Amino acid sequence: MRIWACAFAGSALAMSMGTATANDELMKLQKDANQWVMPTGDYANHRYSELNQINKDNVKNLTPQWTFSTGVLRGHEGAPLVIGDVMYVHAPFPNYVYALDLNKDARILWKYEPKQDPSVIPVMCCDTVNRGVAYADGKIFLNQADAHVVALDAKTGKEIWRVQNGDPKKGETMTAAPMIVKDKVIVGISGGEFGVQGRVTAYAIADGKMLWNAYSVGPDDQLKFDPDKTMAMGKPVGKDSSLQTWQGDQWKIGGGTTWGWYSYDPQLNLIYYGSGNPSTWNPVQRPGDNKWSMTIFARDVDTGVAKWVYQMTPHDEWDYDGVNEMILADIPVKGQTVKALVHFDRNGFGYTLNRENGQLLVAEKFDPKVNWASGIDMQTGRPKGVKEYSTQAGGEDHNSKQICPAALGSKDEQPAAFSPKTNVFYVPTNHVCMDYEPFKISYTAGQPYVGATLSMYPPQGEQNLGNFIAWDAGQGKILWSNSEPFSVWSGALATAGDVVFYGTLEGYLKAVDSATGKELYKFKTPSGIIGNVMTYMHGGKQSVAVLSGVGGWAGIGMAAGLTKDTDGLGAVGAYKALSNYTQLGGVLTVFALPN
Amino acid sequence: MRIWACAFAGSALAMSMGTATANDELMKLQKDANQWVMPTGDYANHRYSELNQINKDNVKNLTPQWTFSTGVLRGHEGAPLVIGDVMYVHAPFPNYVYALDLNKDARILWKYEPKQDPSVIPVMCCDTVNRGVAYADGKIFLNQADAHVVALDAKTGKEIWRVQNGDPKKGETMTAAPMIVKDKVIVGISGGEFGVQGRVTAYAIADGKMLWNAYSVGPDDQLKFDPDKTMAMGKPVGKDSSLQTWQGDQWKIGGGTTWGWYSYDPQLNLIYYGSGNPSTWNPVQRPGDNKWSMTIFARDVDTGVAKWVYQMTPHDEWDYDGVNEMILADIPVKGQTVKALVHFDRNGFGYTLNRENGQLLVAEKFDPKVNWASGIDMQTGRPKGVKEYSTQAGGEDHNSKQICPAALGSKDEQPAAFSPKTNVFYVPTNHVCMDYEPFKISYTAGQPYVGATLSMYPPQGEQNLGNFIAWDAGQGKILWSNSEPFSVWSGALATAGDVVFYGTLEGYLKAVDSATGKELYKFKTPSGIIGNVMTYMHGGKQSVAVLSGVGGWAGIGMAAGLTKDTDGLGAVGAYKALSNYTQLGGVLTVFALPN
Repeated sequence: MRIWACAFAGSALAMSMGTATANDELMKLQKDANQWVMPTGDYANHRYSELNQINKDNVKNLTPQWTFSTGVLRGHEGAPLVIGDVMYVHAPFPNYVYALDLNKDARILWKYEPKQDPSVIPVMCCDTVNRGVAYADGKIFLNQADAHVVALDAKTGKEIWRVQNGDPKKGETMTAAPMIVKDKVIVGISGGEFGVQGRVTAYAIADGKMLWNAYSVGPDDQLKFDPDKTMAMGKPVGKDSSLQTWQGDQWKIGGGTTWGWYSYDPQLNLIYYGSGNPSTWNPVQRPGDNKWSMTIFARDVDTGVAKWVYQMTPHDEWDYDGVNEMILADIPVKGQTVKALVHFDRNGFGYTLNRENGQLLVAEKFDPKVNWASGIDMQTGRPKGVKEYSTQAGGEDHNSKQICPAALGSKDEQPAAFSPKTNVFYVPTNHVCMDYEPFKISYTAGQPYVGATLSMYPPQGEQNLGNFIAWDAGQGKILWSNSEPFSVWSGALATAGDVVFYGTLEGYLKAVDSATGKELYKFKTPSGIIGNVMTYMHGGKQSVAVLSGVGGWAGIGMAAGLTKDTDGLGAVGAYKALSNYTQLGGVLTVFALPN
Repeated sequence: MRIWACAFAGSALAMSMGTATANDELMKLQKDANQWVMPTGDYANHRYSELNQINKDNVKNLTPQWTFSTGVLRGHEGAPLVIGDVMYVHAPFPNYVYALDLNKDARILWKYEPKQDPSVIPVMCCDTVNRGVAYADGKIFLNQADAHVVALDAKTGKEIWRVQNGDPKKGETMTAAPMIVKDKVIVGISGGEFGVQGRVTAYAIADGKMLWNAYSVGPDDQLKFDPDKTMAMGKPVGKDSSLQTWQGDQWKIGGGTTWGWYSYDPQLNLIYYGSGNPSTWNPVQRPGDNKWSMTIFARDVDTGVAKWVYQMTPHDEWDYDGVNEMILADIPVKGQTVKALVHFDRNGFGYTLNRENGQLLVAEKFDPKVNWASGIDMQTGRPKGVKEYSTQAGGEDHNSKQICPAALGSKDEQPAAFSPKTNVFYVPTNHVCMDYEPFKISYTAGQPYVGATLSMYPPQGEQNLGNFIAWDAGQGKILWSNSEPFSVWSGALATAGDVVFYGTLEGYLKAVDSATGKELYKFKTPSGIIGNVMTYMHGGKQSVAVLSGVGGWAGIGMAAGLTKDTDGLGAVGAYKALSNYTQLGGVLTVFALPN
């Protein structure tokens, strides 16, 4: 394959030429629909493919072509990569990585088996998931659970370098996929339930040297904020914009972790991502807006300096992490085509912003059951809270009932897809409400710093825990919605074949008509799907692939073996019926049309 | 479904009417090609189906219809059952059992999760396998790894009774599937590598009461031998036929375990099975023929008394267990149709006997590379040994080279199939040789009592570790042979559609032409296949199902995580390349023709 050969020929060049080549390579590769070169499909996080061999008329004939067990149980998030003739498949802890030869019936070219201390497992809040590896410059980049970032030789699987990006003894772990931009591997950190101070870090892809590091909460220098130039809602943030919103030193254990998806706009030279919940979940304990938790960040990729920020859920009372993906799309908003950033937040609002300056354009509920806020004030950007569903209003040890959405949000990390052909966003959602009781907790490094107990269940009078929806981000409107018995915890894929794919927690890969949502095909994979659907073309055949392997937050009961007396145990109780449909096990299933 | 309804209606009857009904029920059910009511397909161990919706012309269109992960890694032997609308799927340790509703997209009706002490794992010689559950009388019968036999309510999965059939602290474990005959569940015992005294035991299906127990080695009463009536090679065995062939009390730790398959001839009222190796593997330490290890037994199912025996490998020097299945078929042998018993032994000889009296009719090599014996003396039934490949001739600590087959035999437990349509046997085989060095060992209860070190590899000048062959048991001739890179460790299925199915260690389900062996279809399942292919008809569709999940003896290196410095480590070294093709993971894949 020419492209593969180029990639490796290019890697030697990149070594000597530095930043430009690696970037150019990825810029080019991400446009090749035959490959799937980054976990998000492309820098814009579209998860859209120009391939149309599989289309809405023939998708009913789709059949599994081959399958591959990862050798790991528990939750399989993320998706494989395809670079040339090689597929790279990752797994949850212990984070095996496989290179499969697509020319030789998926024979295993190499397997990487990190040695990790299993004591990291109980420090991972929501299963031992990993959302995938990244590729650039002849290397595969892996974020291990134990917060090591590793660069492997893509040809041999041999370790090239390794850096420690966090300390699991303090609850710092890694679950997010890295993103490569130019000469940098951009990584986040997990641990919002352990009081970890969230941050984003850029390492050199050549040798792992740290290039910059930017926190979500803390003093301006740690934030890489320019008080005069970093903007929020059209104004400079000013001095100590974060410190002023925390009591004393609470910011040091203040959360705002960065375990979601990253996107990049090459023209603006900005990367985008969101920060997670402020720690603890008990809002009474941490007065203030707790900036910049729950915030969309736009940072210059070269320097790490923030260009603009937007905090979606000031002073979070519900664990509505803001880490979900930022989808970059140039779409019509109120009659004008805008360089938009579209984000479906855990808090249940679908946001459309101008990604150049952070201007808020649209903010509407993408689940009509959302009740904690009646809407978003478009002037201030702040939610209009509903007192009944404030978990702080009743004080500690008061149980607030029927709050929608639940802590895991109207959508969690499971990424939406965007089709530039339809200008529509296809969004996997949760349809779950909760009772929430905050309680006082003190911080101990490495111990859970949660401070709330939860029950989760479907909205009153309903049975379904999820919907798969089509969304008009210019208008903030649901176009169609498919009800699903469980949350759709799989990433969507949109294609030029007018078919949208997603997986379900029972284990179905589903294909639906992008215009109507009509189900065109389904197949029951070995286990529940929390992986993201991807597609590629090899040997003249378009293939669609997805990891099954139930787990993640929704499947944590099964993944962690909590099967008895689960009512009231948050997601464990809400999803307990899942074990009637599927069992643990990590398997990649690859589909195509019959010959 | 009428049959299912009958089965359950029948179960209440059976409770009151006793033995006859349960037997009648199974006698009838095993003839219904729509179901697969015992692990062996039928009492004769044919593994043949009259279904022909899938045939040699259309099998190329076969496609996976659904898949199911068992939630367990390591080796998945055996096959599911289908009784009416319900499929019963078992798993290796911890021996989960699932009931799947075929009318509701394989929704899980119940899951049985035994609590077993994991200390049993290191006492299982050749992976934590289990070869399946049995059904009768509204109950599912499970042999647990920890040597408990359990009867479950087939409708609810609730435990009805449980008996302890052995002591894992002495190395007694269970891996074989139970067989139900009349009112009895017939079970064997594993542990030949731990000096376990092999035995077969019959328990009442109603309440687990022990009905009879018959040892393989020891005094006549323990053997349930009638010295005057139990026959061997046409003569009564005489008094103390076993004791006379052991030194002192060695028989008490003498092996002859019974972990293979069982068959039953309702007309003759006899059950058939084989006994395993004499313990220890060091032949120098145990002079004598070590009767009745390595022996085919025919026993009256009501009393357990042996009607006849035939020892294939007296004084074993190679670990050629005799436990492989006995296939009961009425076939032409030298011009006459004979009530035959056909057996493909680990020692590399394919035996055809008259199953009424144990008369030896045919004994020929089913792998031309077999070299430890030049043939079988048809008068005495004894092998004609070749001194060069005697592991005793050189004494202890002498390494005998290039012995074929290796300890795991020209075939192990992976069962062959027989088609009454072609009168041909379809045999999954190993093509492996070995170096063998016996050493002195002393017995400690619960500790390995092996006494030999081994290397395994393909025959000189060859690469392939296996063949799938067609065998004429009347003539003792290979009709065709398909070379496979690894041993075929999957059970075969023959069908009236002129298609034979088997799985490979790399994970392929293969369909071949029963007349020629020509490959007609293959599909790569998630993991290596050591399970047995089965078929059933549901909703008007013939389905073919197989468990993948690499492991077992051939896959023990992967199953037990032994991946480094494996040369010389028996099977671990021989099959180390397997990890280039597949990884652990238990998944059922169900195939059918497209709509």
